Amino acid sequence: MRIDVLTLFPEMFEGVFGASILGKARDKGLVSLQAVNFRDYANNKHNTVDDYPYGGGGGMVLKPEPIFAAVEDLMPEGSEPPRVILMCPQGETFTQRKAEELSAAEHLVFVCGHYEGYDERIRQHLVTDELSIGDYVLTGGELPAMTVIDSVVRLLPGVLGNENSAVTDSFSTGLLEYPHYTRPAVFRDYAVPDVLLSGHHANVDAWRREQSLLRTLQRRPELLEQAELSKKEREWLRRLMAERESLEKE
Amino acid sequence: MRIDVLTLFPEMFEGVFGASILGKARDKGLVSLQAVNFRDYANNKHNTVDDYPYGGGGGMVLKPEPIFAAVEDLMPEGSEPPRVILMCPQGETFTQRKAEELSAAEHLVFVCGHYEGYDERIRQHLVTDELSIGDYVLTGGELPAMTVIDSVVRLLPGVLGNENSAVTDSFSTGLLEYPHYTRPAVFRDYAVPDVLLSGHHANVDAWRREQSLLRTLQRRPELLEQAELSKKEREWLRRLMAERESLEKE
Repeated sequence: MRIDVLTLFPEMFEGVFGASILGKARDKGLVSLQAVNFRDYANNKHNTVDDYPYGGGGGMVLKPEPIFAAVEDLMPEGSEPPRVILMCPQGETFTQRKAEELSAAEHLVFVCGHYEGYDERIRQHLVTDELSIGDYVLTGGELPAMTVIDSVVRLLPGVLGNENSAVTDSFSTGLLEYPHYTRPAVFRDYAVPDVLLSGHHANVDAWRREQSLLRTLQRRPELLEQAELSKKEREWLRRLMAERESLEKE
Repeated sequence: MRIDVLTLFPEMFEGVFGASILGKARDKGLVSLQAVNFRDYANNKHNTVDDYPYGGGGGMVLKPEPIFAAVEDLMPEGSEPPRVILMCPQGETFTQRKAEELSAAEHLVFVCGHYEGYDERIRQHLVTDELSIGDYVLTGGELPAMTVIDSVVRLLPGVLGNENSAVTDSFSTGLLEYPHYTRPAVFRDYAVPDVLLSGHHANVDAWRREQSLLRTLQRRPELLEQAELSKKEREWLRRLMAERESLEKE
């Protein structure tokens, strides 16, 4: 996979593209990662990439020419056109499903604005996807682009060793993870639950599943609607919720 | 404000902490930003920070001792205890409201795991907040921590100049932004809407408000429930939705 990022702050990407999973994936040749300063495509005397908005008002707006020119320069001749992804608060909310979809592409180009708005013609005639990573205000699209890239690259074949995939992937079951414990068995009077030290695998599995259901019920009950649960588990959760409601009424 | 990040990959933070708004806020002395390798607090022969999970299974678990020791070392004597924020998929979903809440704190400590799970005693007896930036799987808590830090620091007094705040803050009105346009008036046959070139301010304002409502209706209709709308606007949206539904039925 090839990934290019258009940004006015390419230096923000150095530490992230070089470290950990992204660095290793790049070293193994599984992905090419490049941060490109689109100011280099500003075809005017002062290398201007933004300008005042038509119609007045505060803030600056990114001009169409440098971003169109940069994307077109990054398209190898005769190849499929890339997915061009605009990071912006108005975009579709990014999810694991979208990460899976993007991980099948050959070439991704991310466009990152920084405080400024985008000229609407970039949205209409150049980008294929608009993405937001969540409902909070950030100073630019750089951190969102890194976030999407991290979640996509770890899905590419050969990137994750088996040793790394187990824990995080339990999130993909649709339930929140059960609690983890490691040595020491007692740390400052805080002891590991006995069942985990029992060596009784069936009991450990049952405890973990129960904890996973409980935590999901407490923190993200809406996830339970989508999760694959046994009839017995649904029944148990219904009883728990009923008990909780009757406690609240007292 | 003081912000410390506990991570095994402090080099990931260099480019981000040095650039743009975060770099400027640091240079002005408005925030202190530090990435600390908690491996330095592993008090054992091989500097081990993780271990196998009790009860078996794949994946590694971060040990409690190094993280407790690091957080305690970062607490200045006699000061208020910091907010200790664990970045994890099971956490509360981060929002703009949470950013505003955190921006009032004196000292934030972020704890970033990387593939591994956290020993549950870290959650129970050390952290004050657990945060997730969205429903997607990442290789570590580093990018989420950067994201939260960016959204918090830009809210600190003196960090954003007026020139930068206007565009992004329109997101905080509860509606998605209207389309922006800048020069040239015609780019590759794509023209700027006439109203924006008219110089008629009231018409420009009306067009922008309408576009903002339309875009929110198309992309994030659930936001309209919370937004402040006039009676006339609600009526107009109701008519639009009714028209759309009758079109779909035909």
